[in-house]
Amino acid sequence: MTGLRIIEGGIAAPLGFKAGGVKNLALIYSNVPCICAGIFTTNKITAAPVKLTSKRLKKAKGITQAIIANSGNANCSTGSKGLEDAKAMAKVAASGLGIDENLTLVASTGIIGKPFPIREIEKNIPYLIKTLSKQGSRNAAKAIMTTDTKPKEMAVRFKIKGRDVTIGGIAKGAGMISPNLATMLAFITTDACIEQKTLRKLLKIAADKSFNCITVDGCMSTNDTVLIMANGLANNPCIRKDSRFCDALTYVCSQLSKMIIEDAEGATKFIEVYVQGAKNYKQAKIAANTVANSNLVKSAVFGEDKNTGRVIAAIGASGIDVDGDRLKVDISPLKNKKVRIDIDIMMGKGKAYIWTSDLSTEYVRLNARYN
Amino acid sequence: MTGLRIIEGGIAAPLGFKAGGVKNLALIYSNVPCICAGIFTTNKITAAPVKLTSKRLKKAKGITQAIIANSGNANCSTGSKGLEDAKAMAKVAASGLGIDENLTLVASTGIIGKPFPIREIEKNIPYLIKTLSKQGSRNAAKAIMTTDTKPKEMAVRFKIKGRDVTIGGIAKGAGMISPNLATMLAFITTDACIEQKTLRKLLKIAADKSFNCITVDGCMSTNDTVLIMANGLANNPCIRKDSRFCDALTYVCSQLSKMIIEDAEGATKFIEVYVQGAKNYKQAKIAANTVANSNLVKSAVFGEDKNTGRVIAAIGASGIDVDGDRLKVDISPLKNKKVRIDIDIMMGKGKAYIWTSDLSTEYVRLNARYN
Repeated sequence: MTGLRIIEGGIAAPLGFKAGGVKNLALIYSNVPCICAGIFTTNKITAAPVKLTSKRLKKAKGITQAIIANSGNANCSTGSKGLEDAKAMAKVAASGLGIDENLTLVASTGIIGKPFPIREIEKNIPYLIKTLSKQGSRNAAKAIMTTDTKPKEMAVRFKIKGRDVTIGGIAKGAGMISPNLATMLAFITTDACIEQKTLRKLLKIAADKSFNCITVDGCMSTNDTVLIMANGLANNPCIRKDSRFCDALTYVCSQLSKMIIEDAEGATKFIEVYVQGAKNYKQAKIAANTVANSNLVKSAVFGEDKNTGRVIAAIGASGIDVDGDRLKVDISPLKNKKVRIDIDIMMGKGKAYIWTSDLSTEYVRLNARYN
Repeated sequence: MTGLRIIEGGIAAPLGFKAGGVKNLALIYSNVPCICAGIFTTNKITAAPVKLTSKRLKKAKGITQAIIANSGNANCSTGSKGLEDAKAMAKVAASGLGIDENLTLVASTGIIGKPFPIREIEKNIPYLIKTLSKQGSRNAAKAIMTTDTKPKEMAVRFKIKGRDVTIGGIAKGAGMISPNLATMLAFITTDACIEQKTLRKLLKIAADKSFNCITVDGCMSTNDTVLIMANGLANNPCIRKDSRFCDALTYVCSQLSKMIIEDAEGATKFIEVYVQGAKNYKQAKIAANTVANSNLVKSAVFGEDKNTGRVIAAIGASGIDVDGDRLKVDISPLKNKKVRIDIDIMMGKGKAYIWTSDLSTEYVRLNARYN
């Protein structure tokens, strides 16, 4: 996209936004109410913060002013107490910020099935609010990390009809990452003026080309949450279907997704699985997913062992229409950090890609002890 | 089952059978023609020997006298040359044995997509035939090993209406093991007299309770083959629906399946995932499978880390009907070599089990270099 500048400041870069973070606790705040859109895990078991935030988005008609997120405890399978705790976390933050608690969303990531440490979190909120600043994005990105080794943030600026518009984002990933989200939290802010319906639609389009194209281990989390807040302070003519905004948003989401894969648990390689020639898009996506989630393919890439046979077996196992004697598999040189697995099913026009990481001994070591 | 004795001799234990093995090449032979039934991989891409053997089973109306199997090369994605090679392998064996080539079945396991070493195999067949003996089962079991560390064989004897009936079996597994078979070969012999239709039915029943209940890495192979040969020399009244034969066959298949899991690539634990209370059998099986294939659950068991949260997340991700606040998960002490993960969905009467291994650093190390 032409005229897109990468800038500093992450989620606090857009006009009117501040961010802050203390250990395990992040806060995003807009001076004025924002319209907001969200995408959540499709896991049948969802954490309390996912239940609360998705409900609140509907109840408050998508109007939001703050997001508070914690790491370390997922607040999942915690029953009605968990839901109370999620509400309490939002309420204490809202009260400190002087806003309505219904305009405050929550997100959590971490261990599932353990009591939520609400007292400790409540105690830390007043100090968290004091950390809010235009320089606070990196601290917020750090606060939501679990096994991530690096904070993930970025921001871009571009023009819409002469007005500067900024989009910023932070994310966390590491493990339990699978298409249709992950143990993934991503928060995006923008000062663009945009219609709510359009914001929802564009977030879906951007996520399908980014967050929904990544997998670490095929394990889908109970807490995945992507939220975007738009406060309109850029004062641009309100977006109804601006393709430049969509491109910029897709770029931000893609970059955050790539950062997640590059920093996946134990990852030594970034793998792009690209499938073409499938009967249709759906079959291409299924094949790409099955290859990207094959432990045998991922172990071979880790070992820099060019094993096309395992890619072939995975494609066959995916159940899509394929002829083993016609399909073509090409693996780029494995010495490089970025590896591309090119697959041509030679049957139709369906194509899709998935980004993933390799399966390393370090992944197992990390996940053998995660408390 | 009462009256079932475990005996020595593996696949050569039943009357009239001999077995033999040289490096990478196994042979099973019956003095008289047998009726035969088979189950094959459901991978959309199948290896040449799977194509040939399943076709031959139909063409020769399920009559068979010998099976020749090799390890090291899967003869998959090898095109029409691969099919010729599979035929040639059977033909040379049949000619040496003095039987019709259509009564000779083939199976292969190993690397996918590499030219099949037919010349070397042909050269070794005359010596292989000389190794045939009543003591040859273990050598046959050794010859089909790939990353298996131990040969897998067993035999049982029991009575049907006063006559001794024997069932013997060998198998190989290690990696690329998933329900609906695996990179798994299993050959079973029996001297029982049994109707062909019944043999087919009972093999399916036994496999559903054994080979179709195991997973190592959720990766389905292109070569999975289970074959059973029955030569009738026990001279029992011909079995039409004897439940004792079914029980004994299920026992043999279960024991071989357990040996496969115990010897899975890098395995340090044998894990039984038992699901009850699901809406129905299908949902119970899906849930058990998703838990058994979760890298996060398997890594946690490897690390002896009691992480019920990952089990919960996997159940939710499986897509079955479940309430995160009602379901119960219990994990047996992790210090033991056998671990049981008990799951109660608390919704219905569906139950199912899956046997699997843990995911160890050694699994990754093994699969990082497999040439």
